[in-house]
Amino acid sequence: MTYCLGIVTKHGLVMASDSRSNAGYDQVNTVRKMHTFVQPGERVFVVLTSGSLSLTQSIMTLLRRDFDAGKGLATTPSMYDAARVVGEQVRRVSDMDRAPLERDEYRFNVHLLIGGQVRGQRPELYMVYPQGNPLAATEESPFLQIGETKYGRPILIRGYDRNLSFEDAVKLLMVSFDSTLKANLSVGLPLDLMVIERDTFAPTHQKRIEASDAYFESVSAGWSEALRNAFHSLPDYSFYREAESD
Amino acid sequence: MTYCLGIVTKHGLVMASDSRSNAGYDQVNTVRKMHTFVQPGERVFVVLTSGSLSLTQSIMTLLRRDFDAGKGLATTPSMYDAARVVGEQVRRVSDMDRAPLERDEYRFNVHLLIGGQVRGQRPELYMVYPQGNPLAATEESPFLQIGETKYGRPILIRGYDRNLSFEDAVKLLMVSFDSTLKANLSVGLPLDLMVIERDTFAPTHQKRIEASDAYFESVSAGWSEALRNAFHSLPDYSFYREAESD
Repeated sequence: MTYCLGIVTKHGLVMASDSRSNAGYDQVNTVRKMHTFVQPGERVFVVLTSGSLSLTQSIMTLLRRDFDAGKGLATTPSMYDAARVVGEQVRRVSDMDRAPLERDEYRFNVHLLIGGQVRGQRPELYMVYPQGNPLAATEESPFLQIGETKYGRPILIRGYDRNLSFEDAVKLLMVSFDSTLKANLSVGLPLDLMVIERDTFAPTHQKRIEASDAYFESVSAGWSEALRNAFHSLPDYSFYREAESD
Repeated sequence: MTYCLGIVTKHGLVMASDSRSNAGYDQVNTVRKMHTFVQPGERVFVVLTSGSLSLTQSIMTLLRRDFDAGKGLATTPSMYDAARVVGEQVRRVSDMDRAPLERDEYRFNVHLLIGGQVRGQRPELYMVYPQGNPLAATEESPFLQIGETKYGRPILIRGYDRNLSFEDAVKLLMVSFDSTLKANLSVGLPLDLMVIERDTFAPTHQKRIEASDAYFESVSAGWSEALRNAFHSLPDYSFYREAESD
């Protein structure tokens, strides 16, 4: 499995992916699921991938080949068109690989996030489905997740605010990843983190966060402690009194 | 969907179920998913159900009919045997209904929790799978969830302690339900709550928790506030400094 997350704030985008790749429990590898496409000062895209590595590799190879040739993501006039370009490659790989996979009862199950900005437009974030259709993040739904999404969702729902500083957005993202990592073996460190400030058209900050990362460790340990304190700050259930009055 | 949770502590059991039943989005009902079997002073069982209502109703009807006739759960010498009795009725309903359902591409997908205590033995908690086989809660895995389990799991992993008072166990359970309710429309209030103190062989405390319940409201609102405080108590990510040194 995988966990990838993109968050849109008024300052720009914060995105991250885990790096666990597993075929069963005994073949576990580290793989980069974050891919960057930059024309400095003009456009920046970050693509995060979830699903069978063979399929997502193919999609990324095709996207990269076109980009390097000045086509595809190198020319899209908007984020919407960029998401459509990703969707076209998803469909192209589906045309090549879906039938043989399904014959052996594998599903064609890839999801991608693409975030970024094209000069003259707002930063945007899209999810692309296995069928190639795009879904945009909106004001009501300002973060998008793919892969193992549920464990890390409650804190996003509670913690998100459009006005979050990048520091707080990264903190929120790390808590969401930490909750997921603690609950599910198939999501693993290191994480790849990317921050894109609006109107810079370049990666503002990127970092590979290893298991030994001091900040991630402090968030993980601090969150356990902070949750315990939060829990004990809640009012106590009046169990015995209620029992008497029932 | 559904969310049901059972927690074992050294003091006994705390169990709860939501009550949302839906067939699609436009047919939403309230249904009780908690069922109690008591021989005062001798034995107490609480069964929580998840899955197609038609199937779980059949299972409960068969269990109740036997119990009322002094058979089945009325005579099992242990919690393990009680879980096996539940599994037998799961298999009986499977024999009746699985083939016609699968012919129309419905899955036979029921999960049940059974918690309780038989005189002379420890309180125990089991999950029964759609195939009828039982899984026991253990010291390493002291709570069991069925239905929409993921949203409410991180707080259980962080908050559980075998020495939790019933008050704290109920609080923990409510936070877990609140996280699930906030994330997923298919889980809904009211909740049915049951506390069984060890060696009482009777329901110690039971309550239906409606949307207007003052305690649940205070936990839900308080948890948002407490989480925000917990979040802000974490160290800040040093975004700009890191960016310079990269």
